[in-house]
Amino acid sequence: MSTPTERATHWLSAFSSALARNDAAGAADLFETESHWRDLIAFSWNIKTVEGRAAVADMLKATLASTKPSNWKLDGEATEKDGITQAWFTFETATARGRGHLRLKGDKAWTLLTTAQELKGFEEKKGRRRWNGTDHGVHKGRKNWLEERQEEEATLGISKQPYVLIVGGGQGGLALGARLRRLGVPTIIVDKHERPGDAWRKRYKSLCLHDPVWYDHMPYLPFPDDWPVFSPKDKIGDWLEAYAKIMELNYWAKTECKTAKYDEAKKEWTVEVLRDGKPVTLRPKQLVLATGQAGLPNMPDYPGMKDFKGKQRHSSQHPGGEDWSGKKCVVIGSNNSAHDICADLWEHGADVTMVQRSSTHVSRSETLQELWTYPLWGEQALENGITCDQADMIAASMPYRLMAEGHKQLTAEMKRRDADFYARLEKAGFLLDFGDDESGLPLKYYRRGSGYYIDVGASELICNGSIKLKQGKVERITATGVKFTDGSELEADLIVYATGFGSMNGWAAQLISQEVADKVGKVWGLGSDTTKDPGPWEGEFRNMWKPTQQEALWFQGGNLHQSRHYSQFLAIQLKARMEGLPTPVYGVPKTHHLS
Amino acid sequence: MSTPTERATHWLSAFSSALARNDAAGAADLFETESHWRDLIAFSWNIKTVEGRAAVADMLKATLASTKPSNWKLDGEATEKDGITQAWFTFETATARGRGHLRLKGDKAWTLLTTAQELKGFEEKKGRRRWNGTDHGVHKGRKNWLEERQEEEATLGISKQPYVLIVGGGQGGLALGARLRRLGVPTIIVDKHERPGDAWRKRYKSLCLHDPVWYDHMPYLPFPDDWPVFSPKDKIGDWLEAYAKIMELNYWAKTECKTAKYDEAKKEWTVEVLRDGKPVTLRPKQLVLATGQAGLPNMPDYPGMKDFKGKQRHSSQHPGGEDWSGKKCVVIGSNNSAHDICADLWEHGADVTMVQRSSTHVSRSETLQELWTYPLWGEQALENGITCDQADMIAASMPYRLMAEGHKQLTAEMKRRDADFYARLEKAGFLLDFGDDESGLPLKYYRRGSGYYIDVGASELICNGSIKLKQGKVERITATGVKFTDGSELEADLIVYATGFGSMNGWAAQLISQEVADKVGKVWGLGSDTTKDPGPWEGEFRNMWKPTQQEALWFQGGNLHQSRHYSQFLAIQLKARMEGLPTPVYGVPKTHHLS
Repeated sequence: MSTPTERATHWLSAFSSALARNDAAGAADLFETESHWRDLIAFSWNIKTVEGRAAVADMLKATLASTKPSNWKLDGEATEKDGITQAWFTFETATARGRGHLRLKGDKAWTLLTTAQELKGFEEKKGRRRWNGTDHGVHKGRKNWLEERQEEEATLGISKQPYVLIVGGGQGGLALGARLRRLGVPTIIVDKHERPGDAWRKRYKSLCLHDPVWYDHMPYLPFPDDWPVFSPKDKIGDWLEAYAKIMELNYWAKTECKTAKYDEAKKEWTVEVLRDGKPVTLRPKQLVLATGQAGLPNMPDYPGMKDFKGKQRHSSQHPGGEDWSGKKCVVIGSNNSAHDICADLWEHGADVTMVQRSSTHVSRSETLQELWTYPLWGEQALENGITCDQADMIAASMPYRLMAEGHKQLTAEMKRRDADFYARLEKAGFLLDFGDDESGLPLKYYRRGSGYYIDVGASELICNGSIKLKQGKVERITATGVKFTDGSELEADLIVYATGFGSMNGWAAQLISQEVADKVGKVWGLGSDTTKDPGPWEGEFRNMWKPTQQEALWFQGGNLHQSRHYSQFLAIQLKARMEGLPTPVYGVPKTHHLS
Repeated sequence: MSTPTERATHWLSAFSSALARNDAAGAADLFETESHWRDLIAFSWNIKTVEGRAAVADMLKATLASTKPSNWKLDGEATEKDGITQAWFTFETATARGRGHLRLKGDKAWTLLTTAQELKGFEEKKGRRRWNGTDHGVHKGRKNWLEERQEEEATLGISKQPYVLIVGGGQGGLALGARLRRLGVPTIIVDKHERPGDAWRKRYKSLCLHDPVWYDHMPYLPFPDDWPVFSPKDKIGDWLEAYAKIMELNYWAKTECKTAKYDEAKKEWTVEVLRDGKPVTLRPKQLVLATGQAGLPNMPDYPGMKDFKGKQRHSSQHPGGEDWSGKKCVVIGSNNSAHDICADLWEHGADVTMVQRSSTHVSRSETLQELWTYPLWGEQALENGITCDQADMIAASMPYRLMAEGHKQLTAEMKRRDADFYARLEKAGFLLDFGDDESGLPLKYYRRGSGYYIDVGASELICNGSIKLKQGKVERITATGVKFTDGSELEADLIVYATGFGSMNGWAAQLISQEVADKVGKVWGLGSDTTKDPGPWEGEFRNMWKPTQQEALWFQGGNLHQSRHYSQFLAIQLKARMEGLPTPVYGVPKTHHLS
């Protein structure tokens, strides 16, 4: 009977030998029939999961010659649980140092994760490699740090062009900006707001992050250990503002991006921006859209909207409930924003009705954290020695297809724990679901980025009738309210359309062209063939953090965890291109959906 | 032959038993004849080192009844090196949880460190105790984080009085402010500058911290791992500004403290400040002077100064070398500021002479870090598992008297490594010393806060004659320059008096009264009976971070390491008083020196 470490060592050695003799088929034979290899830019220069031996062999045949993997070493002891051997390892490629994770069933690989962690010769200047801060010695005419920063600010984007332009300075843009700064990639971040963090500050008053603090760290600068579990919006806004400053990011506030056009011959973008009202033309080599996981607002087109005499607006334009005390408010939609806005209106004394058009998943915040995030990102995890970086890697080691299976078990447990809560919600008439395949909230987020509410209080208001609930299909908007297909009507002084957002490629259409947006296709979603996430199966997020069908166009973002973790791999992809390293991309999927 | 852990366990058990049966003499017998017990507010509510069995017994007799120490436990395995057994341990007192360190020679204690780490029932709200960030649930009329912060800013110091007022918002004030914030002690920091960090920004252009980054962390928010080794002044200024904001400190910028008076009956200070030019009266219970390790500038009083036709000023008033290209500049003094100012003037093309009035110690920065700081605070230390907090505690475990002995060995090694450097300096006529007892730079800093230069380049300019050197005693200032007692004269367009600073109790004299300043006496220094640090031996810094002869008056500061580490104990002392816990202070020393 061999030990887990012996089994993992043996597998790694056999795999490494097969790769060394360029034997793709032999290497593929080391995988289970049903197996998953997830590669984050180490072999594929792509974010790619391949499934089964044939696909493994295919990826190896296409990438081995350029990747030249070597120096595979187990990192720590392997472990075994429920018949699965797990191990961490390190390796190298022609251009990078890598880290990976292995799950064996018996002596065959069930899952494999390979990631490129840093480029050889282009490592971050940290730890022992950090800048000295001053050249000891005395030099006539030297510039100090402030003068150099001021010179950079005065020239970058004016007399010197950035290599990367990031559109959008929220957590996604800032995280990527910080990583690129460390890699010495000249970068400008443009954002339309006055100050970094304003995208949070300007939202409704009671907003706090829905994910807990341990899940939300930005790269390099963890929150202090007294940071609140759920950051209030203004506090996270201030944090992001301080972050931009501390990380020395070239952040152009009050800058609106108007148009962008790619010159295929020059391999360069021409981007027109208005910086504090003044036109500036930027010519970056790479363009990153970090404009938010949600695309443009989906405004419905109901008959009669133009005749409505009250106020009506999309949820993204709704500033809060201050002015609506005693007024009749109808919120169309039943996802996160709809719930938050209804609760906020109720807090301000409005008469509120939520219009639910289809079923919604609800997870109680506490239960969700306990079952989903806390095992990896939380105080217990920290006490178990799982740092945030390690948690990110553990999460990355689980392919999305298998993740759905695991989450079905969490859903069952959630239903058990919160049975009374769900019974009361349904009794109040709320249409509940737990995902097409009962895989719950995280998968809904990954697949469609919508369809759920993380309950922080509004569900109780629905249960007790404080927020009224109306099921139905809107037929038309009248001068005084909303008319439904069942003939009923709701009077309204205010209608909020909490009707969601389009795909992020809407940003590309707006900024670049419909043609480029269509070439790139839908952004986000896994191709799971479930509601709002049509197939075919992609196995990874569409177009996120990796090459797209449009050369030099990238999408960065997601929640704070994703912004943090995937910015590492996007930054390395951009740095490699800047340095002219070979980056042959394997397996960019065809575009199947336009939005 | 027992193991180190067995010996340490045995000692701790014997010590704990003696204390439990109130046997001060028996406990003292567990110490070597020549032994040192350093207590940071655990037994003494003071920062106190006692030496020898009699003093140990005396401190125990005075403190045992109120301290009620218990629950002594070894923390990890003990180690042994060169016949000394070392061990960490934890314990409790009536009011606090403590941590300590023990060195045994044979089976007797040679050194003992006891520290109070946190007050029971008044722990910091961090980790699992952190604030949730929002009250889940929906509440009419609730305030969000921003509204509560704004309300606090609008009322504290206006309609509500702070418990603590900190005068001075440099690293000392900010570190203490952050710790008090976590303990829920209402605090205002006042500072005369426009922005936090300005005390650094406003200094000469080439200034970088002389201590390396690993030694300089602020509490709770470590520098990112690419922070430069020696922070440029504007970068550390920006960091401190961000720190004040992130830590939610109530920081009154542009606020000058005019007078302070203690009302013995009310147990309250009346402090008059000018906030942005507008008078405000504050009534804090506790007043902390964090106005810098240096006191008021020592301006010399040479005959003829009023007749000098050029510019003359104290080093603290010298803005930099910009205006002095081609001009004759004389810098009187030969410590850090003098060297930095000479080098800066030379960089700007001035003709510079340094006037050395007495010998000076010079350490090459690199050698100093390698021998002194890096073994505890540096990359190698981190790789050895020594975090910054652990390094602070290791440093604290060594009583000052023994520290001097250790540093004599470092001095010898430094002389060996840099023999050529020192030979060239002396050849250039520079008067060198290594401290009265050859204990080098750190002890000079602890004893007198002066008398040295950390060489970052100026010494080379002295060696090669770029900075001219003049040895001598100033007889008078003439209309055109400086005349010396040896009859020689130096022409000067500019005279900079780099003649140091007084004791910090000068701040008390200026702000409160000469009477209170005299009652408190000299601040800083150990009573080592060496140059500028007259005896008697105190064993600890005079008046720093601990009770003084003036009730409710405290001094906070020192370098970044001291500001960080000792602010923990000062914050606990203040919190205990706010909560009305008994804090019987043992052994406040008599005042021996007025300045």
